[in-house]
Amino acid sequence: MNPVVLALPGNEAVAKRLAERLTLELGRAELRRFPDGESYVRIDGAVKGGSVIVICTLDRPDEKFLPLTFLAATARDCGAARVGLVCPYLAYMRQDMRFRDGEGVTSSYFASAISKCFDWLVTIDPHLHRRASLSEIYSIPAIAVHAATRLADWIREYVPAPLVIGPDAESEQWVSAVADSAQAPYVVLEKVRLSDREVQVSLPKANRWRERMPVLVDDIISSARTMIAAARRFREAGLRQPLCVGVHAIFADRAYEELIAAGVAGVVTCNTVPHISNQIDITDLLEAPIRNLLRT
Amino acid sequence: MNPVVLALPGNEAVAKRLAERLTLELGRAELRRFPDGESYVRIDGAVKGGSVIVICTLDRPDEKFLPLTFLAATARDCGAARVGLVCPYLAYMRQDMRFRDGEGVTSSYFASAISKCFDWLVTIDPHLHRRASLSEIYSIPAIAVHAATRLADWIREYVPAPLVIGPDAESEQWVSAVADSAQAPYVVLEKVRLSDREVQVSLPKANRWRERMPVLVDDIISSARTMIAAARRFREAGLRQPLCVGVHAIFADRAYEELIAAGVAGVVTCNTVPHISNQIDITDLLEAPIRNLLRT
Repeated sequence: MNPVVLALPGNEAVAKRLAERLTLELGRAELRRFPDGESYVRIDGAVKGGSVIVICTLDRPDEKFLPLTFLAATARDCGAARVGLVCPYLAYMRQDMRFRDGEGVTSSYFASAISKCFDWLVTIDPHLHRRASLSEIYSIPAIAVHAATRLADWIREYVPAPLVIGPDAESEQWVSAVADSAQAPYVVLEKVRLSDREVQVSLPKANRWRERMPVLVDDIISSARTMIAAARRFREAGLRQPLCVGVHAIFADRAYEELIAAGVAGVVTCNTVPHISNQIDITDLLEAPIRNLLRT
Repeated sequence: MNPVVLALPGNEAVAKRLAERLTLELGRAELRRFPDGESYVRIDGAVKGGSVIVICTLDRPDEKFLPLTFLAATARDCGAARVGLVCPYLAYMRQDMRFRDGEGVTSSYFASAISKCFDWLVTIDPHLHRRASLSEIYSIPAIAVHAATRLADWIREYVPAPLVIGPDAESEQWVSAVADSAQAPYVVLEKVRLSDREVQVSLPKANRWRERMPVLVDDIISSARTMIAAARRFREAGLRQPLCVGVHAIFADRAYEELIAAGVAGVVTCNTVPHISNQIDITDLLEAPIRNLLRT
Protein backbone atom coordinates (compact mmCIF):
# COMPACT_ATOMS: atom_id res chain seq x y z
CA MET A 1 0.00 0.00 0.00
CA ASN A 2 1.44 3.38 -1.04
CA PRO A 3 1.42 6.24 1.47
CA VAL A 4 -1.64 8.48 1.43
CA VAL A 5 -1.62 12.24 2.13
CA LEU A 6 -4.65 13.58 4.07
CA ALA A 7 -5.39 17.28 4.68
CA LEU A 8 -7.27 18.81 7.56
CA PRO A 9 -9.62 21.61 6.36
CA GLY A 10 -7.56 24.65 5.38
CA ASN A 11 -4.49 22.61 4.44
CA GLU A 12 -5.65 21.37 1.05
CA ALA A 13 -3.29 23.51 -1.05
CA VAL A 14 -0.10 22.45 0.74
CA ALA A 15 -1.30 18.82 0.85
CA LYS A 16 -1.94 18.80 -2.91
CA ARG A 17 1.46 20.32 -3.67
CA LEU A 18 3.23 17.87 -1.33
CA ALA A 19 1.43 14.85 -2.79
CA GLU A 20 2.47 15.98 -6.30
CA ARG A 21 6.10 16.56 -5.31
CA LEU A 22 6.32 13.23 -3.50
CA THR A 23 4.21 11.45 -6.18
CA LEU A 24 1.91 10.15 -3.45
CA GLU A 25 -1.83 9.63 -3.47
CA LEU A 26 -3.87 12.55 -2.14
CA GLY A 27 -6.61 10.92 -0.05
CA ARG A 28 -9.86 12.45 1.11
CA ALA A 29 -10.45 13.22 4.77
CA GLU A 30 -13.99 14.36 5.51
CA LEU A 31 -14.05 16.56 8.61
CA ARG A 32 -16.91 18.73 9.77
CA ARG A 33 -18.52 20.07 12.90
CA PHE A 34 -22.01 19.11 13.96
CA PRO A 35 -24.19 22.03 15.05
CA ASP A 36 -23.53 21.08 18.71
CA GLY A 37 -19.80 21.69 18.21
CA GLU A 38 -18.62 18.09 18.04
CA SER A 39 -16.44 16.90 15.16
CA TYR A 40 -17.18 14.26 12.56
CA VAL A 41 -14.28 12.42 10.91
CA ARG A 42 -14.21 10.05 7.98
CA ILE A 43 -11.49 8.79 5.64
CA ASP A 44 -12.79 8.18 2.16
CA GLY A 45 -10.58 5.50 0.63
CA ALA A 46 -8.21 2.73 1.68
CA VAL A 47 -5.25 3.24 4.00
CA LYS A 48 -4.90 -0.33 5.27
CA GLY A 49 -1.34 -1.49 5.81
CA GLY A 50 0.21 1.73 4.54
CA SER A 51 1.51 5.05 5.83
CA VAL A 52 -0.76 8.03 6.30
CA ILE A 53 0.65 11.57 6.22
CA VAL A 54 -1.64 14.07 7.89
CA ILE A 55 -1.18 17.74 6.92
CA CYS A 56 -2.34 20.25 9.53
CA THR A 57 -0.77 23.55 10.40
CA LEU A 58 -1.27 24.34 14.07
CA ASP A 59 -2.10 28.02 14.47
CA ARG A 60 -5.21 28.39 16.72
CA PRO A 61 -4.44 24.88 18.02
CA ASP A 62 -7.13 24.37 20.68
CA GLU A 63 -10.03 23.94 18.27
CA LYS A 64 -7.93 21.81 15.92
CA PHE A 65 -6.53 19.28 18.37
CA LEU A 66 -9.46 16.86 18.69
CA PRO A 67 -10.31 16.67 14.95
CA LEU A 68 -6.58 16.19 14.22
CA THR A 69 -6.06 13.39 16.72
CA PHE A 70 -9.42 11.82 15.82
CA LEU A 71 -8.22 11.65 12.21
CA ALA A 72 -5.03 9.89 13.33
CA ALA A 73 -7.09 7.41 15.40
CA THR A 74 -9.46 6.83 12.47
CA ALA A 75 -6.51 6.11 10.18
CA ARG A 76 -5.24 3.50 12.64
CA ASP A 77 -8.73 2.01 13.00
CA CYS A 78 -8.82 1.73 9.21
CA GLY A 79 -5.59 -0.25 9.36
CA ALA A 80 -2.89 2.36 8.65
CA ALA A 81 0.48 0.99 9.68
CA ARG A 82 2.01 4.39 10.47
CA VAL A 83 0.60 7.90 10.83
CA GLY A 84 2.88 10.93 10.46
CA LEU A 85 2.09 14.59 11.02
CA VAL A 86 3.28 17.45 8.83
CA CYS A 87 2.53 20.74 10.57
CA PRO A 88 4.15 23.67 8.78
CA TYR A 89 3.53 25.72 11.94
CA LEU A 90 3.92 23.94 15.29
CA ALA A 91 1.95 25.24 18.28
CA TYR A 92 2.73 25.48 21.97
CA MET A 93 6.45 26.20 21.80
CA ARG A 94 6.36 29.31 24.01
CA GLN A 95 5.67 28.05 27.54
CA ASP A 96 8.79 25.94 27.83
CA MET A 97 9.37 26.42 31.55
CA ARG A 98 7.55 27.37 34.75
CA PHE A 99 7.97 31.13 35.11
CA ARG A 100 5.66 31.29 38.14
CA ASP A 101 4.68 28.66 40.71
CA GLY A 102 1.81 26.50 39.56
CA GLU A 103 2.15 27.20 35.84
CA GLY A 104 1.60 24.43 33.36
CA VAL A 105 4.50 23.75 30.99
CA THR A 106 2.20 23.48 28.02
CA SER A 107 4.93 22.84 25.44
CA SER A 108 5.72 19.56 27.21
CA TYR A 109 2.06 18.57 27.62
CA PHE A 110 1.27 19.33 23.98
CA ALA A 111 4.36 17.47 22.76
CA SER A 112 3.44 14.47 24.87
CA ALA A 113 -0.16 14.46 23.56
CA ILE A 114 1.00 14.69 19.92
CA SER A 115 3.66 12.02 20.47
CA LYS A 116 0.93 9.60 21.65
CA CYS A 117 -1.08 10.02 18.45
CA PHE A 118 1.52 10.19 15.68
CA ASP A 119 4.60 8.18 14.70
CA TRP A 120 6.62 11.14 13.45
CA LEU A 121 6.46 14.86 12.93
CA VAL A 122 7.87 17.36 10.41
CA THR A 123 7.60 21.10 10.96
CA ILE A 124 9.17 24.40 9.86
CA ASP A 125 11.06 26.76 12.16
CA PRO A 126 9.50 25.81 15.50
CA HIS A 127 9.97 28.56 18.08
CA LEU A 128 12.79 26.80 19.96
CA HIS A 129 13.70 29.22 22.66
CA ARG A 130 15.25 27.71 25.74
CA ARG A 131 15.27 24.27 24.12
CA ALA A 132 17.97 22.97 21.80
CA SER A 133 15.78 20.60 19.80
CA LEU A 134 12.30 19.15 19.50
CA SER A 135 13.59 15.81 20.77
CA GLU A 136 13.72 17.30 24.29
CA ILE A 137 9.92 17.23 24.40
CA TYR A 138 8.76 15.06 21.48
CA SER A 139 9.29 11.33 22.03
CA ILE A 140 8.69 10.57 18.32
CA PRO A 141 11.12 11.46 15.51
CA ALA A 142 10.48 15.20 15.09
CA ILE A 143 12.26 16.99 12.26
CA ALA A 144 12.46 20.78 12.01
CA VAL A 145 13.40 22.36 8.68
CA HIS A 146 14.41 25.99 8.33
CA ALA A 147 13.06 28.75 6.14
CA ALA A 148 15.82 31.33 6.74
CA THR A 149 17.40 30.76 3.33
CA ARG A 150 13.99 31.21 1.67
CA LEU A 151 13.47 34.58 3.34
CA ALA A 152 17.00 35.50 2.25
CA ASP A 153 16.34 34.37 -1.35
CA TRP A 154 13.20 36.48 -1.46
CA ILE A 155 14.98 39.55 -0.04
CA ARG A 156 17.89 39.17 -2.46
CA GLU A 157 15.54 38.80 -5.40
CA TYR A 158 13.11 41.62 -4.64
CA VAL A 159 14.79 44.21 -2.40
CA PRO A 160 17.60 46.43 -3.72
CA ALA A 161 20.12 47.51 -1.02
CA PRO A 162 18.34 45.90 1.95
CA LEU A 163 19.15 46.31 5.62
CA VAL A 164 18.00 43.18 7.49
CA ILE A 165 16.65 44.08 10.94
CA GLY A 166 15.97 41.62 13.76
CA PRO A 167 13.45 42.29 16.55
CA ASP A 168 15.80 41.82 19.51
CA ALA A 169 19.19 40.58 20.71
CA GLU A 170 17.83 37.03 21.14
CA SER A 171 17.12 36.80 17.43
CA GLU A 172 20.61 37.90 16.40
CA GLN A 173 21.94 34.50 15.36
CA TRP A 174 18.95 33.76 13.15
CA VAL A 175 18.87 37.29 11.70
CA SER A 176 22.56 37.20 10.85
CA ALA A 177 22.03 33.93 8.99
CA VAL A 178 19.21 35.50 6.94
CA ALA A 179 21.36 38.58 6.24
CA ASP A 180 24.47 36.58 5.28
CA SER A 181 22.45 34.50 2.88
CA ALA A 182 20.83 37.67 1.46
CA GLN A 183 24.28 39.27 1.17
CA ALA A 184 23.07 42.25 3.19
CA PRO A 185 24.09 44.01 6.41
CA TYR A 186 21.98 43.51 9.53
CA VAL A 187 21.20 45.13 12.89
CA VAL A 188 18.91 44.20 15.74
CA LEU A 189 16.50 46.61 17.38
CA GLU A 190 16.97 47.86 20.90
CA LYS A 191 13.70 47.10 22.57
CA VAL A 192 11.91 48.15 25.75
CA ARG A 193 8.74 46.15 26.38
CA LEU A 194 6.30 48.39 28.27
CA SER A 195 3.53 45.75 28.52
CA ASP A 196 2.14 42.66 26.74
CA ARG A 197 0.85 44.95 24.00
CA GLU A 198 3.29 47.85 23.98
CA VAL A 199 6.95 48.05 23.06
CA GLN A 200 9.31 50.89 22.26
CA VAL A 201 12.19 50.26 19.89
CA SER A 202 15.14 52.09 18.49
CA LEU A 203 17.48 51.41 15.61
CA PRO A 204 21.14 51.75 16.61
CA LYS A 205 23.14 54.14 14.38
CA ALA A 206 20.04 54.97 12.36
CA ASN A 207 21.84 57.58 10.27
CA ARG A 208 24.19 55.02 8.78
CA TRP A 209 21.26 53.28 7.04
CA ARG A 210 19.47 56.12 5.29
CA GLU A 211 20.22 54.71 1.83
CA ARG A 212 19.09 51.20 2.71
CA MET A 213 15.65 49.61 2.52
CA PRO A 214 14.83 48.39 6.04
CA VAL A 215 13.55 44.78 6.10
CA LEU A 216 12.18 43.65 9.47
CA VAL A 217 12.43 39.86 9.78
CA ASP A 218 10.98 37.50 12.39
CA ASP A 219 10.11 33.82 12.70
CA ILE A 220 6.53 34.45 13.89
CA ILE A 221 4.48 37.60 13.28
CA SER A 222 1.85 37.37 16.01
CA SER A 223 0.88 40.62 17.76
CA ALA A 224 3.20 42.51 15.34
CA ARG A 225 3.81 45.02 18.18
CA THR A 226 7.55 45.25 17.50
CA MET A 227 7.11 45.77 13.77
CA ILE A 228 4.41 48.40 14.36
CA ALA A 229 6.61 50.20 16.90
CA ALA A 230 9.54 50.04 14.46
CA ALA A 231 7.46 51.52 11.62
CA ARG A 232 6.51 54.41 13.92
CA ARG A 233 10.09 54.94 15.11
CA PHE A 234 11.50 54.85 11.57
CA ARG A 235 9.06 57.52 10.44
CA GLU A 236 10.05 59.76 13.37
CA ALA A 237 13.73 59.17 12.50
CA GLY A 238 13.14 60.06 8.85
CA LEU A 239 14.02 56.55 7.66
CA ARG A 240 12.22 54.68 4.89
CA GLN A 241 9.16 52.64 5.84
CA PRO A 242 10.14 49.03 6.44
CA LEU A 243 9.21 45.85 4.64
CA CYS A 244 8.06 43.11 7.06
CA VAL A 245 9.14 39.55 6.25
CA GLY A 246 8.21 36.63 8.49
CA VAL A 247 7.97 32.86 8.38
CA HIS A 248 4.69 32.22 10.20
CA ALA A 249 1.70 34.52 9.59
CA ILE A 250 -0.09 34.13 12.93
CA PHE A 251 -1.48 37.70 13.13
CA ALA A 252 -3.40 37.57 16.43
CA ASP A 253 -6.65 39.54 16.52
CA ARG A 254 -6.34 42.53 14.13
CA ALA A 255 -2.52 42.57 14.06
CA TYR A 256 -2.34 42.42 10.26
CA GLU A 257 -4.72 45.35 9.75
CA GLU A 258 -2.83 47.35 12.37
CA LEU A 259 0.50 46.56 10.74
CA ILE A 260 -0.79 47.75 7.36
CA ALA A 261 -2.27 50.85 9.01
CA ALA A 262 1.14 51.60 10.55
CA GLY A 263 2.24 52.37 6.99
CA VAL A 264 4.78 49.60 6.40
CA ALA A 265 5.99 49.19 2.83
CA GLY A 266 4.73 45.60 2.63
CA VAL A 267 4.20 42.33 4.51
CA VAL A 268 5.55 39.05 3.15
CA THR A 269 5.24 35.61 4.77
CA CYS A 270 5.77 31.94 3.96
CA ASN A 271 2.78 29.67 3.33
CA THR A 272 3.06 27.81 6.65
CA VAL A 273 -0.15 29.46 7.89
CA PRO A 274 -2.61 30.38 5.12
CA HIS A 275 -2.84 34.18 4.93
CA ILE A 276 -3.13 36.83 2.21
CA SER A 277 0.49 37.87 2.91
CA ASN A 278 1.82 34.40 1.89
CA GLN A 279 4.29 35.04 -0.90
CA ILE A 280 7.05 32.51 -0.26
CA ASP A 281 6.21 28.87 -0.99
CA ILE A 282 8.20 26.59 1.34
CA THR A 283 6.37 23.31 0.60
CA ASP A 284 9.47 21.87 -1.03
CA LEU A 285 11.42 22.15 2.26
CA LEU A 286 9.14 19.46 3.69
CA GLU A 287 9.85 16.98 0.92
CA ALA A 288 13.22 15.50 1.96
CA PRO A 289 12.40 14.88 5.64
CA ILE A 290 9.06 13.24 4.72
CA ARG A 291 10.83 11.01 2.20
CA ASN A 292 13.37 10.00 4.85
CA LEU A 293 10.73 9.29 7.48
CA LEU A 294 8.68 7.18 5.06
CA ARG A 295 11.79 5.10 4.44
CA THR A 296 12.46 4.31 8.14
CA MET B 1 -3.64 17.27 51.96
CA ASN B 2 -7.40 17.75 51.54
CA PRO B 3 -8.92 17.48 48.07
CA VAL B 4 -9.12 20.70 46.06
CA VAL B 5 -11.91 21.62 43.62
CA LEU B 6 -10.82 23.51 40.47
CA ALA B 7 -13.20 25.05 37.92
CA LEU B 8 -12.57 25.63 34.23
CA PRO B 9 -13.93 29.03 33.11
CA GLY B 10 -17.74 28.92 33.01
CA ASN B 11 -18.00 26.24 35.70
CA GLU B 12 -17.43 28.44 38.75
CA ALA B 13 -20.99 28.32 40.09
CA VAL B 14 -21.28 24.53 40.10
CA ALA B 15 -17.73 24.20 41.48
CA LYS B 16 -18.50 26.57 44.35
CA ARG B 17 -21.72 24.77 45.22
CA LEU B 18 -19.99 21.37 45.08
CA ALA B 19 -17.09 22.52 47.24
CA GLU B 20 -19.57 23.80 49.82
CA ARG B 21 -21.65 20.61 49.83
CA LEU B 22 -18.55 18.41 50.08
CA THR B 23 -16.82 20.84 52.50
CA LEU B 24 -13.76 20.87 50.25
CA GLU B 25 -11.41 23.69 49.42
CA LEU B 26 -12.27 25.65 46.26
CA GLY B 27 -8.91 26.24 44.57
CA ARG B 28 -8.08 28.77 41.90
CA ALA B 29 -7.28 27.67 38.36
CA GLU B 30 -6.11 30.49 36.13
CA LEU B 31 -6.91 29.73 32.50
CA ARG B 32 -6.80 32.17 29.62
CA ARG B 33 -6.09 32.34 25.92
CA PHE B 34 -3.18 34.27 24.50
CA PRO B 35 -4.05 36.46 21.50
CA ASP B 36 -2.53 33.79 19.21
CA GLY B 37 -5.12 31.26 20.42
CA GLU B 38 -2.92 29.18 22.72
CA SER B 39 -3.98 28.48 26.29
CA TYR B 40 -2.25 29.49 29.52
CA VAL B 41 -2.80 27.37 32.63
CA ARG B 42 -1.83 27.98 36.23
CA ILE B 43 -2.94 26.55 39.56
CA ASP B 44 -2.84 29.15 42.30
CA GLY B 45 -2.30 27.24 45.55
CA ALA B 46 -1.01 23.89 46.78
CA VAL B 47 -2.28 20.53 45.53
CA LYS B 48 0.76 18.41 46.39
CA GLY B 49 -0.02 14.91 47.57
CA GLY B 50 -3.78 15.39 47.46
CA SER B 51 -6.72 14.84 45.14
CA VAL B 52 -7.76 17.42 42.58
CA ILE B 53 -11.35 17.52 41.32
CA VAL B 54 -11.65 19.36 38.02
CA ILE B 55 -15.11 20.71 37.10
CA CYS B 56 -15.72 21.19 33.39
CA THR B 57 -18.93 20.62 31.50
CA LEU B 58 -18.19 19.45 27.97
CA ASP B 59 -20.57 21.15 25.57
CA ARG B 60 -18.57 22.65 22.63
CA PRO B 61 -15.79 20.20 23.55
CA ASP B 62 -13.19 20.83 20.85
CA GLU B 63 -12.03 24.20 22.15
CA LYS B 64 -12.13 22.96 25.76
CA PHE B 65 -10.12 19.79 25.44
CA LEU B 66 -6.55 21.14 25.53
CA PRO B 67 -7.07 23.61 28.41
CA LEU B 68 -8.86 20.85 30.35
CA THR B 69 -6.17 18.24 29.88
CA PHE B 70 -3.41 20.84 30.39
CA LEU B 71 -4.98 21.63 33.77
CA ALA B 72 -4.91 17.94 34.70
CA ALA B 73 -1.26 17.71 33.64
CA THR B 74 -0.41 20.87 35.59
CA ALA B 75 -2.07 19.42 38.70
CA ARG B 76 0.08 16.29 38.38
CA ASP B 77 3.21 18.40 37.78
CA CYS B 78 2.35 20.26 40.99
CA GLY B 79 2.27 16.94 42.83
CA ALA B 80 -1.43 16.03 42.90
CA ALA B 81 -1.81 12.35 43.75
CA ARG B 82 -5.08 11.89 41.85
CA VAL B 83 -7.02 14.02 39.40
CA GLY B 84 -10.74 13.41 38.85
CA LEU B 85 -13.08 15.00 36.32
CA VAL B 86 -16.63 16.11 37.03
CA CYS B 87 -18.37 16.94 33.75
CA PRO B 88 -22.08 17.54 34.23
CA TYR B 89 -22.46 17.14 30.45
CA LEU B 90 -20.25 14.57 28.72
CA ALA B 91 -19.36 15.08 25.06
CA TYR B 92 -18.84 12.69 22.17
CA MET B 93 -21.43 10.07 23.06
CA ARG B 94 -23.20 10.07 19.70
CA GLN B 95 -20.80 8.45 17.25
CA ASP B 96 -20.64 5.08 18.98
CA MET B 97 -20.21 2.93 15.88
CA ARG B 98 -19.08 3.11 12.27
CA PHE B 99 -22.18 3.85 10.23
CA ARG B 100 -20.20 4.23 7.00
CA ASP B 101 -16.82 2.84 5.94
CA GLY B 102 -13.94 4.98 7.09
CA GLU B 103 -15.78 6.82 9.87
CA GLY B 104 -14.02 7.55 13.12
CA VAL B 105 -15.71 6.18 16.25
CA THR B 106 -15.17 9.43 18.11
CA SER B 107 -16.86 8.31 21.34
CA SER B 108 -14.12 5.69 21.78
CA TYR B 109 -11.30 8.07 20.85
CA PHE B 110 -12.58 10.78 23.19
CA ALA B 111 -13.07 8.29 26.04
CA SER B 112 -9.58 6.98 25.53
CA ALA B 113 -8.07 10.49 25.54
CA ILE B 114 -9.95 11.47 28.73
CA SER B 115 -9.04 8.16 30.40
CA LYS B 116 -5.34 8.93 29.82
CA CYS B 117 -5.56 12.28 31.63
CA PHE B 118 -7.90 11.64 34.58
CA ASP B 119 -8.20 8.99 37.29
CA TRP B 120 -11.99 8.99 37.43
CA LEU B 121 -15.03 10.66 35.94
CA VAL B 122 -18.50 11.63 37.16
CA THR B 123 -21.20 12.83 34.77
CA ILE B 124 -24.97 13.24 34.48
CA ASP B 125 -27.14 11.37 31.98
CA PRO B 126 -24.59 10.64 29.28
CA HIS B 127 -26.26 9.91 25.95
CA LEU B 128 -25.76 6.13 26.14
CA HIS B 129 -27.36 4.86 23.01
CA ARG B 130 -26.08 1.57 21.73
CA ARG B 131 -23.82 1.20 24.76
CA ALA B 132 -24.86 -0.25 28.10
CA SER B 133 -22.44 1.73 30.26
CA LEU B 134 -19.55 4.16 30.20
CA SER B 135 -17.17 1.36 31.23
CA GLU B 136 -17.39 0.01 27.67
CA ILE B 137 -15.32 2.96 26.48
CA TYR B 138 -13.83 4.61 29.60
CA SER B 139 -10.99 2.65 31.15
CA ILE B 140 -11.16 4.72 34.37
CA PRO B 141 -13.99 4.50 36.93
CA ALA B 142 -16.76 6.49 35.21
CA ILE B 143 -19.97 7.09 37.15
CA ALA B 144 -23.18 8.32 35.53
CA VAL B 145 -25.91 9.76 37.72
CA HIS B 146 -29.44 10.36 36.50
CA ALA B 147 -31.57 13.47 36.48
CA ALA B 148 -34.90 11.82 35.54
CA THR B 149 -36.29 12.08 39.08
CA ARG B 150 -35.37 15.78 39.16
CA LEU B 151 -37.28 16.49 35.96
CA ALA B 152 -40.18 14.52 37.46
CA ASP B 153 -40.01 16.46 40.74
CA TRP B 154 -40.10 19.74 38.84
CA ILE B 155 -43.05 18.64 36.69
CA ARG B 156 -45.01 17.39 39.71
CA GLU B 157 -44.37 20.61 41.58
CA TYR B 158 -45.11 23.11 38.83
CA VAL B 159 -47.39 21.53 36.21
CA PRO B 160 -51.03 20.68 37.00
CA ALA B 161 -52.39 17.69 35.03
CA PRO B 162 -49.29 17.10 32.89
CA LEU B 163 -48.93 14.74 29.95
CA VAL B 164 -45.28 13.69 29.65
CA ILE B 165 -44.25 13.36 25.99
CA GLY B 166 -41.08 11.66 24.73
CA PRO B 167 -39.46 12.52 21.38
CA ASP B 168 -39.44 8.99 19.91
CA ALA B 169 -39.87 5.27 20.57
CA GLU B 170 -36.19 4.95 21.56
CA SER B 171 -36.73 7.29 24.49
CA GLU B 172 -39.75 5.38 25.84
CA GLN B 173 -38.02 3.70 28.77
CA TRP B 174 -36.55 6.95 30.05
CA VAL B 175 -39.76 8.92 29.43
CA SER B 176 -41.87 6.35 31.26
CA ALA B 177 -39.52 6.62 34.26
CA VAL B 178 -39.93 10.42 34.29
CA ALA B 179 -43.73 10.07 33.98
CA ASP B 180 -44.03 7.41 36.68
CA SER B 181 -42.05 9.51 39.07
CA ALA B 182 -44.13 12.59 38.15
CA GLN B 183 -47.32 10.49 38.61
CA ALA B 184 -48.46 11.46 35.13
CA PRO B 185 -49.42 9.63 31.93
CA TYR B 186 -47.00 9.60 29.01
CA VAL B 187 -46.89 9.12 25.26
CA VAL B 188 -44.08 9.20 22.71
CA LEU B 189 -44.27 11.11 19.45
CA GLU B 190 -44.44 9.38 16.12
CA LYS B 191 -41.61 10.90 14.16
CA VAL B 192 -40.55 11.10 10.54
CA ARG B 193 -37.10 12.65 10.07
CA LEU B 194 -37.03 14.42 6.69
CA SER B 195 -33.40 15.63 7.00
CA ASP B 196 -30.77 16.58 9.62
CA ARG B 197 -32.74 19.74 10.32
CA GLU B 198 -36.34 18.77 9.56
CA VAL B 199 -38.70 16.38 11.28
CA GLN B 200 -42.44 15.83 11.19
CA VAL B 201 -44.18 14.52 14.30
CA SER B 202 -47.62 13.47 15.41
CA LEU B 203 -49.14 12.81 18.80
CA PRO B 204 -51.01 9.51 18.91
CA LYS B 205 -54.63 9.80 20.11
CA ALA B 206 -54.27 13.57 20.43
CA ASN B 207 -57.95 14.05 21.35
CA ARG B 208 -57.58 12.06 24.57
CA TRP B 209 -55.16 14.68 25.95
CA ARG B 210 -57.01 17.96 25.42
CA GLU B 211 -57.34 18.59 29.15
CA ARG B 212 -53.68 17.88 29.86
CA MET B 213 -50.67 20.19 29.79
CA PRO B 214 -48.21 18.70 27.27
CA VAL B 215 -44.65 18.48 28.64
CA LEU B 216 -42.01 17.52 26.07
CA VAL B 217 -39.04 15.90 27.78
CA ASP B 218 -35.60 14.96 26.42
CA ASP B 219 -32.13 14.25 27.75
CA ILE B 220 -30.41 16.73 25.40
CA ILE B 221 -32.01 19.73 23.72
CA SER B 222 -29.65 20.37 20.82
CA SER B 223 -31.21 21.38 17.49
CA ALA B 224 -34.66 21.38 19.21
CA ARG B 225 -36.12 20.32 15.83
CA THR B 226 -38.48 17.74 17.37
CA MET B 227 -39.77 20.15 20.01
CA ILE B 228 -40.28 22.88 17.41
CA ALA B 229 -42.11 20.45 15.12
CA ALA B 230 -44.25 19.28 18.04
CA ALA B 231 -45.20 22.85 19.00
CA ARG B 232 -46.32 23.42 15.38
CA ARG B 233 -48.25 20.14 15.24
CA PHE B 234 -49.97 20.76 18.57
CA ARG B 235 -51.18 24.16 17.41
CA GLU B 236 -52.59 22.66 14.22
CA ALA B 237 -54.30 19.97 16.33
CA GLY B 238 -55.80 22.54 18.69
CA LEU B 239 -53.80 21.28 21.67
CA ARG B 240 -52.22 23.47 24.31
CA GLN B 241 -48.73 24.77 23.64
CA PRO B 242 -46.17 22.47 25.24
CA LEU B 243 -43.67 23.05 28.00
CA CYS B 244 -40.16 21.83 27.07
CA VAL B 245 -38.13 20.18 29.83
CA GLY B 246 -34.63 18.81 29.21
CA VAL B 247 -31.53 17.79 31.11
CA HIS B 248 -28.76 19.28 28.96
CA ALA B 249 -29.22 22.76 27.42
CA ILE B 250 -26.97 22.38 24.37
CA PHE B 251 -29.02 24.57 21.99
CA ALA B 252 -26.94 24.42 18.82
CA ASP B 253 -26.79 27.64 16.81
CA ARG B 254 -30.05 29.59 17.34
CA ALA B 255 -32.10 26.60 18.51
CA TYR B 256 -33.23 28.29 21.73
CA GLU B 257 -34.47 31.43 19.98
CA GLU B 258 -36.27 29.30 17.41
CA LEU B 259 -37.88 27.18 20.10
CA ILE B 260 -39.15 30.30 21.87
CA ALA B 261 -40.34 31.70 18.54
CA ALA B 262 -42.28 28.46 17.94
CA GLY B 263 -44.51 29.61 20.77
CA VAL B 264 -43.82 26.95 23.40
CA ALA B 265 -45.18 27.63 26.88
CA GLY B 266 -41.72 27.54 28.43
CA VAL B 267 -38.28 25.93 28.40
CA VAL B 268 -36.76 24.42 31.53
CA THR B 269 -33.38 22.71 31.84
CA CYS B 270 -30.96 21.44 34.49
CA ASN B 271 -27.76 23.38 35.25
CA THR B 272 -25.45 20.86 33.56
CA VAL B 273 -24.71 23.38 30.77
CA PRO B 274 -24.99 27.04 31.83
CA HIS B 275 -27.97 28.59 30.03
CA ILE B 276 -30.73 31.09 30.83
CA SER B 277 -33.24 28.20 30.82
CA ASN B 278 -31.48 26.48 33.79
CA GLN B 279 -34.13 26.10 36.47
CA ILE B 280 -33.35 22.72 38.04
CA ASP B 281 -30.21 22.53 40.19
CA ILE B 282 -28.75 19.02 40.04
CA THR B 283 -25.39 19.74 41.72
CA ASP B 284 -26.35 17.57 44.71
CA LEU B 285 -26.62 14.48 42.46
CA LEU B 286 -22.85 14.68 41.96
CA GLU B 287 -22.07 14.65 45.67
CA ALA B 288 -22.35 10.95 46.58
CA PRO B 289 -20.32 9.56 43.64
CA ILE B 290 -17.54 12.12 44.20
CA ARG B 291 -17.44 11.22 47.91
CA ASN B 292 -17.17 7.54 47.00
CA LEU B 293 -14.44 8.09 44.42
CA LEU B 294 -12.41 10.22 46.84
CA ARG B 295 -12.55 7.33 49.30
CA THR B 296 -11.21 4.69 46.87
